[in-house]
Amino acid sequence: MNKNNCPDMKYLFEPGSIAVIGASHDKGKIGYRIVENILSGGYRGHVYPVNPVGGKILGAHVFESLEFIDDTVDVACIVVPARQVFDAIRSCGQKGVKFSMIISSGFSEVGNIEEERKIVSCARAHGMRVLGPNMFGIYSAAASLNATFGPKDINPGEVAIITQSGALGLSMIGKTAVEHIGLSSIVSVGNKSDLDEADLLEYLVRQDSVKVILIYIEGVKKGEKLAKTLKKITRKKPVIVIKSGRSKKGAVAVTSHTGSLAGADNVFDAVMRQCGVLRAETINEALNWCKFISNSPLPPGKETVIITNGGGLGVLATDACEKYGIKLYDDAATLKKVFSSVTPEFGSLKNPIDLTGQAKSFHYNTALDFAFRCDEIAMVIALYCDTAVFGGENLITMINENYSKSKDAGKLITFSVFGGEDTQSGLQELDKLGIPVYGDVYEAVSPLGAVYSYYHYLKNRTDKVDDIDIDVDSIDKIVWNVKKEGRFFLLAHEAQDIMRIADIQIPKSIVASTLEKAVKGSRAIGYPVVMKVVSKEIIHKSDVGGVALDLLNENEVIDAYEAIICNCKTKVPGAVIEGVEIAEMVTQGTEAIVGAKIDPSFGPIVMAGLGGIYVETLKDVSFRAYPLDRREILSMIKELRSYPLLLGVRGEKLRDINCLVDTIIKLGAIIKKCKGISDIEINPLVMYEQGMGAQAVDVRVLLLSD
Amino acid sequence: MNKNNCPDMKYLFEPGSIAVIGASHDKGKIGYRIVENILSGGYRGHVYPVNPVGGKILGAHVFESLEFIDDTVDVACIVVPARQVFDAIRSCGQKGVKFSMIISSGFSEVGNIEEERKIVSCARAHGMRVLGPNMFGIYSAAASLNATFGPKDINPGEVAIITQSGALGLSMIGKTAVEHIGLSSIVSVGNKSDLDEADLLEYLVRQDSVKVILIYIEGVKKGEKLAKTLKKITRKKPVIVIKSGRSKKGAVAVTSHTGSLAGADNVFDAVMRQCGVLRAETINEALNWCKFISNSPLPPGKETVIITNGGGLGVLATDACEKYGIKLYDDAATLKKVFSSVTPEFGSLKNPIDLTGQAKSFHYNTALDFAFRCDEIAMVIALYCDTAVFGGENLITMINENYSKSKDAGKLITFSVFGGEDTQSGLQELDKLGIPVYGDVYEAVSPLGAVYSYYHYLKNRTDKVDDIDIDVDSIDKIVWNVKKEGRFFLLAHEAQDIMRIADIQIPKSIVASTLEKAVKGSRAIGYPVVMKVVSKEIIHKSDVGGVALDLLNENEVIDAYEAIICNCKTKVPGAVIEGVEIAEMVTQGTEAIVGAKIDPSFGPIVMAGLGGIYVETLKDVSFRAYPLDRREILSMIKELRSYPLLLGVRGEKLRDINCLVDTIIKLGAIIKKCKGISDIEINPLVMYEQGMGAQAVDVRVLLLSD
Repeated sequence: MNKNNCPDMKYLFEPGSIAVIGASHDKGKIGYRIVENILSGGYRGHVYPVNPVGGKILGAHVFESLEFIDDTVDVACIVVPARQVFDAIRSCGQKGVKFSMIISSGFSEVGNIEEERKIVSCARAHGMRVLGPNMFGIYSAAASLNATFGPKDINPGEVAIITQSGALGLSMIGKTAVEHIGLSSIVSVGNKSDLDEADLLEYLVRQDSVKVILIYIEGVKKGEKLAKTLKKITRKKPVIVIKSGRSKKGAVAVTSHTGSLAGADNVFDAVMRQCGVLRAETINEALNWCKFISNSPLPPGKETVIITNGGGLGVLATDACEKYGIKLYDDAATLKKVFSSVTPEFGSLKNPIDLTGQAKSFHYNTALDFAFRCDEIAMVIALYCDTAVFGGENLITMINENYSKSKDAGKLITFSVFGGEDTQSGLQELDKLGIPVYGDVYEAVSPLGAVYSYYHYLKNRTDKVDDIDIDVDSIDKIVWNVKKEGRFFLLAHEAQDIMRIADIQIPKSIVASTLEKAVKGSRAIGYPVVMKVVSKEIIHKSDVGGVALDLLNENEVIDAYEAIICNCKTKVPGAVIEGVEIAEMVTQGTEAIVGAKIDPSFGPIVMAGLGGIYVETLKDVSFRAYPLDRREILSMIKELRSYPLLLGVRGEKLRDINCLVDTIIKLGAIIKKCKGISDIEINPLVMYEQGMGAQAVDVRVLLLSD
Repeated sequence: MNKNNCPDMKYLFEPGSIAVIGASHDKGKIGYRIVENILSGGYRGHVYPVNPVGGKILGAHVFESLEFIDDTVDVACIVVPARQVFDAIRSCGQKGVKFSMIISSGFSEVGNIEEERKIVSCARAHGMRVLGPNMFGIYSAAASLNATFGPKDINPGEVAIITQSGALGLSMIGKTAVEHIGLSSIVSVGNKSDLDEADLLEYLVRQDSVKVILIYIEGVKKGEKLAKTLKKITRKKPVIVIKSGRSKKGAVAVTSHTGSLAGADNVFDAVMRQCGVLRAETINEALNWCKFISNSPLPPGKETVIITNGGGLGVLATDACEKYGIKLYDDAATLKKVFSSVTPEFGSLKNPIDLTGQAKSFHYNTALDFAFRCDEIAMVIALYCDTAVFGGENLITMINENYSKSKDAGKLITFSVFGGEDTQSGLQELDKLGIPVYGDVYEAVSPLGAVYSYYHYLKNRTDKVDDIDIDVDSIDKIVWNVKKEGRFFLLAHEAQDIMRIADIQIPKSIVASTLEKAVKGSRAIGYPVVMKVVSKEIIHKSDVGGVALDLLNENEVIDAYEAIICNCKTKVPGAVIEGVEIAEMVTQGTEAIVGAKIDPSFGPIVMAGLGGIYVETLKDVSFRAYPLDRREILSMIKELRSYPLLLGVRGEKLRDINCLVDTIIKLGAIIKKCKGISDIEINPLVMYEQGMGAQAVDVRVLLLSD
């Protein structure tokens, strides 16, 4: 067992022995199907069907009870009805089983949460780990183990799949076979009562035979752990994720059909990007990526060239490149030098290179050869549409040969072919061979976009974390005092105290209980000042005339003081007025919003947005998991559509982005280290020119309620 | 000939006779291929190959010259080299040919613009119209005419295609055959030297056999005409458009490979939507829509239900519905009433209806039957993933039968099936029959989105136009005076005059040449006022201290006047200072930007955006072609991401949207009716609460330079 009190995951994927508890003689039952699949799949370990009725299933002796098995059992596969699962788990625990897969359903997914919890704690007490319940089993090529109730013949290969949906996972077995994708393993995680994606990933990353990992996910339970694992894994191999529930409606559907809560999709999306995970939109796109990535090296760079025999396809591919973040090589001189000899005068030497409808094998071969030999070009998109002069067998040969040549050159290539019956059947033939040929230019560009994005991540990733020290004790003290009062939000002055502790600049202010003190305070702060009534009874201060802005001198302060006191006494007769707050009038600047919170899925996350009121309307905000390095924070800020505002528009100067980054780190550190705080948000953070810092004008702090 | 001096387009698509000028005896040449295609395609009219060498081609007599043909010739197909085309056109004109298709290339697409122009004017002088040059010909099922050099056997059917790209068009013939899509006609427009998409559409809309029209377009030349035609046509039949060059790079590629200039993509997109045209992103999506729409009625409403045997697929479909604008039916009580008898307890009765992996034909049949009979449900998305209990032949039968039932019920249905070999081959079998079955849920939802969007357009479209009268003469006079000075932009006071003429509110202002007049003027306008120096020599007024804001009383006006005069004299010693402008200080409000301009493709268009500075950064603007009705302007405003700002945020009241709409109509009317103006823009238009109007604070007017 390792440090987490977990048997080595190797026993789950490559067990020396497996027991099927609930093995059935009835061919229509799952308990039969699983035994059948294990036996027919070529599993080399021991198989122990268990059923009180005994007998034989497909020649295998059926044990009446687990304890009768005179061998260690690494994995137990449990298919008995829900109400019998607990007893089965207990006997597995007593037997010293390392992993139990609970196929049976009827637990948290239908509200039966307590029973599921009971089962897991019983297992853990025996040092046993649980996969499921409500899952379809496991296929593992490393052990030739097909312990699922799905299809019989599974093609072994290099793609590992983890799926939260059982139905989808089972049908992916067939679908991947149709798409000529071999599987290294496929596991369903079901309700994730104990083991989850992160645990399974720990094994998969160590397996050399696994080239790429595909995860279908509906809801994240332990996001921090998942993110940490993914970050580790993507250093070594690409991970593709499909998360349904992107839309609001989708998220509701997820909640209704599994027991888990989907995190806000934009947080999920941001964290996945931060972890270097590739997120596909559709299953077909994900499988397309899996196939392409498992057959291709990483690109040697980002510059891409499109070679086509039809201008129209070229333009469509250009659009697709923009969509998928592919950089088209645009050094006109080099393009001309490289391709002019093979491109007719009425073709195009701008990228896309248009060989025109006259192009035959020779032209493609020559152009592609040039591209493979040109150091500046890393990736090639080769397009073909049916012409009278070239097609059929010649087309297939051309593609086949050039795919090989691209491999030799260490470059990436995808093909898109468009046309009639011959072309279509050529496509299918090549697809069978694992050559990336597609019927649509967008499909051809999409996997290049994915692999390039992974390459870019690997090139720029870092383990560095720009964390800072925070005086946690002082903040904890404030939080403690607030909680003692039974409050879960901080008053303005308390939030301001936290800003001071974290060294985040706030407008100077004092509370004055008399006119004399107000005048003195204003002088000390420096004109202009703003004045606000201080009274627990008055919430909407400006509505009752309790606020005065832009007070320029002593006379105006005196007038304002008297007006405010008078207004408040008249309009809120019972209010206890403690005095007025005098604060520095904040100079105009660019309004930002920054925040940090404990995300229910992913733990501490930070957020940035710009433009005050526009954040609410345009939802132009971005997220990252904390901690992270400054560069990643910068990339989060650059994701904002409104980012150019920080660079200075209409003659303004560059804003103090360094200070923005510092502030985000400070909020992240507070949320991570000061355990009682759930949300902290500065809105607006008024930003000045580079070097001039920013002012946290309004700060909101919420506490965890438990 | 009709009013446009154009022979009836029927003669182009259904000619009684066709001459091929440049018919060739060489089997490798286009001039042979076209004759061969016409003869073998079953064309019922007369075919006249023309070539000075005479003889016979495939048994047809070859005329040495056009004049030797003793018959009227409706269409001439010209395949001679570029330098001989003019002579060929002249002889066609003399012969009284109605339409010439110039297959030959070597004209404007390679810069040979003058020759192309000469050809067209020669043709028009003879009352003949020209298609091309640089095109592949025409296929027209109505006349069994395959006058192309593309594939031989074309499946007749109900889809008409117009394409700007020859190569893509030719390969679409094969591709549509593979996809089991029949063609009613396919025409390439080439360089559009004379006839363009709009002309061809005039014929296609009258043909009952045409169910749907697909246009592949790269650049729009006569956008106003195209938009007008499309608007007329979409009332009768759906039009699908693929326009490449969405991206900036793509637009460059288009420019380099055809002779046309791509209009800004967002204007194109907006105008197409305004015309009820469905815009597809990829060719495959467009063909998918064509096939679905030509086989389906319009939906009887918008409410949609998803029926699935796997929760995961259901959630993915829900995401897809959000992407494609499909409304999921959400009346929980009705859903429960309708589907509860067929859904197991651990399934889901929320939409998606999850029949669970236990579902067999019976469950699908029953659930679909319920859906077809439920008045509230108009469209159904039926999902299936492989299970052990249901699949193969039963699946095919289920889908087939329910597709028929959906037709009987007048409802729309698409299917998505996911899984292994059996399922995949079932899919292909059904696809051949024209049944909408897809391998991916997104593909299954996309055509429903298209057809629903068309339905929605038809339901809401109007011919109403909310135009207004404008005092054109007075505006023309201003424009005339400016042009006389050789200027192509208006000075502030000239632009303000136009605002007054159009009854658009602007801040009150006067120009004062003395301090006395400044004080008097300020009093007349009412405090607070702003003051700006007036001097042709001083462009950046605030930089030299030539601006004073928020002047509250006479004393401040006096001080400001003296300061401004002193500042300007000191900092710009030679400047002639004509005085100062005194203007009303504009009350704060919501800043909008509105404009109208002559788009190079589409003529008069109007634009709206919100948020002043954010327009530049976030590009949050929307467009429409002018004229249009108020409701369409409202829909344009609602497209803005920042639209909620107009509804009042943070306690603000609803803004005066009526006034915004009025202002847009006024600008549109000015741009449409005052011929000398190319651009007119108000930025900012400061908007107040409903009923309180808006102020055009800054107005920019540009003139046409020719």
